Parts: sequence; C-alpha cells; structure tokens
Amino acid sequence: MTRIEFNEMKATIRQAFLNAGMTEEKAEVCARIHTESSRDGVYSHGLNRVERFVDYIGKGWIDVHAEPTLGAKLGAMEIYNGNMGPGITNAIFAMNRATGIAGENGFGLVSLNNTTHWMRGGAYGWQAAEKGFIGICWTNTESCMPAWGAKSVGIGNNPFIMAVPRKEGHVVLDMAMSQYSYGKLQTTRLKGQKLPFAGGFDQEGNLTDNPGAIEETRRILPMGYWKGSGFAVMLDLISALLSGGLTTSGVDQAGLGSCGSCCQVFIAIDPLKLNSREFVEQAIAGTIQQIKSSQLAEGVDEIYYPGEQSLKTRTENMELGIPVDDGIWANVKKLAGLS
Amino acid sequence: MTRIEFNEMKATIRQAFLNAGMTEEKAEVCARIHTESSRDGVYSHGLNRVERFVDYIGKGWIDVHAEPTLGAKLGAMEIYNGNMGPGITNAIFAMNRATGIAGENGFGLVSLNNTTHWMRGGAYGWQAAEKGFIGICWTNTESCMPAWGAKSVGIGNNPFIMAVPRKEGHVVLDMAMSQYSYGKLQTTRLKGQKLPFAGGFDQEGNLTDNPGAIEETRRILPMGYWKGSGFAVMLDLISALLSGGLTTSGVDQAGLGSCGSCCQVFIAIDPLKLNSREFVEQAIAGTIQQIKSSQLAEGVDEIYYPGEQSLKTRTENMELGIPVDDGIWANVKKLAGLS
Repeated sequence: MTRIEFNEMKATIRQAFLNAGMTEEKAEVCARIHTESSRDGVYSHGLNRVERFVDYIGKGWIDVHAEPTLGAKLGAMEIYNGNMGPGITNAIFAMNRATGIAGENGFGLVSLNNTTHWMRGGAYGWQAAEKGFIGICWTNTESCMPAWGAKSVGIGNNPFIMAVPRKEGHVVLDMAMSQYSYGKLQTTRLKGQKLPFAGGFDQEGNLTDNPGAIEETRRILPMGYWKGSGFAVMLDLISALLSGGLTTSGVDQAGLGSCGSCCQVFIAIDPLKLNSREFVEQAIAGTIQQIKSSQLAEGVDEIYYPGEQSLKTRTENMELGIPVDDGIWANVKKLAGLS
Repeated sequence: MTRIEFNEMKATIRQAFLNAGMTEEKAEVCARIHTESSRDGVYSHGLNRVERFVDYIGKGWIDVHAEPTLGAKLGAMEIYNGNMGPGITNAIFAMNRATGIAGENGFGLVSLNNTTHWMRGGAYGWQAAEKGFIGICWTNTESCMPAWGAKSVGIGNNPFIMAVPRKEGHVVLDMAMSQYSYGKLQTTRLKGQKLPFAGGFDQEGNLTDNPGAIEETRRILPMGYWKGSGFAVMLDLISALLSGGLTTSGVDQAGLGSCGSCCQVFIAIDPLKLNSREFVEQAIAGTIQQIKSSQLAEGVDEIYYPGEQSLKTRTENMELGIPVDDGIWANVKKLAGLS
C-alpha cells in the first residue's frame, strides 16, 4: 500500500484545483478539506473524489468563482444562495456564519440552497467543534436509496452530523442514512469479502451481505430499515423548508450531478453561554467513561465514542502517510500536471 | 379483542389521575395524551403506561403539582427546570414556549432539565405541527441499551422526533434509538412470533430475531448497529448541554425510575416565515409523490410517508374503538375507582 505524506497530497490536490480554474484561496481550502478527509479515513470523499469534482467543474455543474449570497435573515437564522459554488467553500462559509451568530446569542442557524456536494459532511461538525461550538448539520442529496417498501431509488442518503467540542478529542457523529455507502460496497467487493451485516437487497428481493449483488440492484438498505428511510425523508424536507431550496425530487430533476443544487442546514450552539466549563467537561467525561467501562461484547477490545476512530486514523495517517489507491493517485497527479 | 371508545378511555384515565392527586387541569391533559397515544397505536405509552405513572407518583418520583420554572433565557433559547413534574405537562409547556418564540422570530428552542418521562415523544411533534410549526424534539433516558461493542447497558434509547406540518396529514417521524422497543419484544414473544429482523443478541452473543432471548440478555440492538448507538450518545450529550441537566449516566445515578430527572430539547420553526405557503406545500407534496410512486418491493402494497400509518391507526381506532388488553384495562378502571 502506498502512503502519501499529508502536505504532498494537499499540494497536489491544490494544484489540480488551480489547473481547473479555482482561485488560490478556494483551491487551498478545498485541497485541505479533501486531504483532511483522506487523513481521517474518509477516503471516498477525500482524494478519491478529486477527479469527479474536477469533472463537474468541466461540465459546468460547479461554478468555481461563485460565492454565497444572503437571501434572508430572521432572528438567529440566515439563508444563503450557494450559487452553485464549490460545496466545500459554501459549507465552510455557512458553518462559520452559524458559529458567528451563536457567538452573540448562543444559537445560530444558517441554511444554503442551490449549493453543491460538500464532500465529507463531518468536516463542518469538526469545524464547529474546533471553535468550541456544538455543531449540527445535514444536507439533502439526489435519490440514491429506495424508501422503505420500495424497489427503486426515491430518497436521498442525506448525511447527518452532530459534534460536541471536547479538549481531548471532539465527539463527532457523521452518518449517512444508508447502512453502508456505495464506496463501502465497492471496496468490500474488490477485497472479495462479505459485508459485516446485510446491506441491501439482491435481485430476488432478499436481504444480502453480498456487496456485488446490492450494487447490481442499487437497493441499498436504510440504517434501521424503516427508521433510516423516514429520517432521510425528514432531513430532506426540513433542509428544503429551511433554505427555500430543492428537495431530493427537485435535485433529481435538476440533473446537475450528485448533490447538484442541494440544500444544507448548519446549526451552531455555544455550550459555554449556557453552562460552566466544568459542567460541560464533566457531562462529557461521565458519558464517555460510562460507555468505555461497559462489559465488552464478544471479540471487542474497546468501545469507542463517536469520532474516536477518526482521530485514531488521523494520528496513524499523519505518522505513516495517507494510504492511496495507486491508480487514483496517478490520476490526481495528472490533473495537477505532475506526470 | 376489546375496544374502548376514546372518550370512555380518557375519562377513566382522567379519574385515575385525579385519584392519584392531580389537579383537574393536569389530569385532563395527561389523560388526553395517554389516550391519544393509544388511539394512534402507541399502546406502550398510552393506556398501558398509566399504572406505572401512578406508581411513580406514589413513590414520590413525580411531583404532580410541580410546574416548570425558567432557569435561563438567551436569544431564541430558554431553559426550564421541570421540577420533577409530570413529563407530559412539562413537555407540552416546553413545546408551547418553543412555538411561541418561533412565532416571533421564526425559531425557538426550549430545553427542560429535571423532568420526568414524557410518554410518547411523538405527541410533541404533532403538537408543533398542529400549530403549523416544524417541530424537532428529543429526550435522554436512563441506560437501557448497550453501546455498540458492549454487552451491558450503558446508553439511553433516547427518542428523536421530527415533524413537518401538512394540511392533509402531518409528516412525523418518532423513533427511538433501538431497532425494537422492549414493548415490541414482549408482544412479539407473547404471540409466539419472531421479530421481522434481528433485534438484539442472545446469550452466546449472536444476533437473533427471537424476542425472548433478547429480553433475557437485555442486549437490544441499536438501529443501524453503530449508527443508532452513536446517535443516542450525541442526543444524550446535547440534551444535557442545552439544558444543564443530567446525562444518561446521571439519570442512572439519580435512581428515580425510567427517565427520572431527564433532559429534553424542543425546537420549533415557522416554515411560513421563510417561504410562501405554495412553496411549502409543493415541496412536501413532491416528496410524498416521489416516495409513493416508487416501484413497490416484493409483498408491499403501499409505501407510507412518516406518520401516515399513525393517522390510519387513528382513524380506525376512532371508528372501532381503541384496542386494549383486558387485564390492563381492568387495572386502570380499578385506579379510577370504577370496579
């Protein structure tokens, strides 16, 4: 397995983005987020997503020069039009505004309409937590999962993120609504393995842990069956109603690629405006201690709090380099003009 | 199966609550919510929960005369101490304040600490939607589920509710973090049936759809495995940090019964302060149409939007009467002094 050092990866992606027409400033930010995603183990939306992002720019599905513009302001809420700009810079802007508003009155909610794929949603949860804020955010997507009871895709896989700041490592949940991503199906299939648990339906309509069979039907399983399906619908509706943008069915009709003209919601809350630092630290420490001191299940060495495994991967990848697929790395280097 | 007419059930529960020392006003509200829960098919937290509620009053774990008191106010957020009052009246008060605040500036967030079991969480989502607001609410609970990787219970089953108002029937998601409730395990076992999907672990640590085996280990499965586990942790932490109250581990230590001195969060948003009525109606209608027009999976007659099946059950139970377990109904009548 080839491993690439963080700064080399970031510089290469940055150059690829500059070559695609981005400004220095935007290329720097987007390259950092893609590299950090790979660094934290979210390879599907890090280095591996660079080619598709550049392809979307070429197709005119992303306007690299667009900036979000304020559409409405009401109390602690602000709505922005993402103007089909890069999903990453739009999302960073939006969470930054949310923490800015929350810095005044404890709470801020910023929504984006008409934006594009934000890549790794967890990035914006970590962003809020780094500043000391509780962060909650989600996006809608195009249809890529069947609703519960359906055979054909009709709902989004709408990732949902919750982050709580903590000195020793933030507590961050970053979950999509499907049990497994298409990326996980692909990598599991390529390794010739089965999924840990059933992840979708085969041609006969039976639940299966065979990733290839699910890729064929595109009948990926919502997490918790009907629960993840219903949650996806609610996240979609509320993101559209909070931003005045397109629901999943509208994103489908727009036909501008994955998440083209989607909606996103960013919430920030300052826990120290409501509580003492001591209370906050003890609440989190007590919760983590309770989880970690549980009796371990069969074959389990340690119980992790949400986000802990990302931090472990981060430490490892910063030390050893970030693992890459050689073919993908060669292609990104080509986009950067380095081969 | 015995069916009891709505008004008879409500009057009986009301009398039981009056006999337990509640005021006319509180007994009326609590009896309505318990009866509506059974009416909508949530039997476990409707009639079936009356005896335990009365028992908790007797134990001093609920103060029937307590009212919430304002602890802090910051922008669009208010924090109340529930003073261990009835969970239902506290929660109705809190969602009512949230919609009141949202009526001014579009958004309101009210949290409760030191409150008690709110019974059916969906009630407060429906409450917000009835008034035309998007409602989001959740509660933490005592430990009743193992964290992912654990054998012993360490996290709450923290229900999470999202509601979107709609003229023809609100869209409401009301989900706990476990794949199945203990109530579902019990009723499935009593019918001699298997669960539709694996719902927990047996003594050997294997996933099983045998409800009795799960009741023995108390190793119920979080929905989506690690996802529901992580989501439960985040809901717990954020409810405590937003209200200054106890986390699940603190509720465990308090030892005041199920949800004794728990925390809850109530969010209300006015979608019509941000959008035209036409936009809101079209966004919801388009989404429901897309789901309903999906290709049906094997053996499925119709695809439901979140909340639709509750409405169907409501209509049926209002027409035919609300089904009851004869033993439970006799006990509640006894509490009401009617037998």
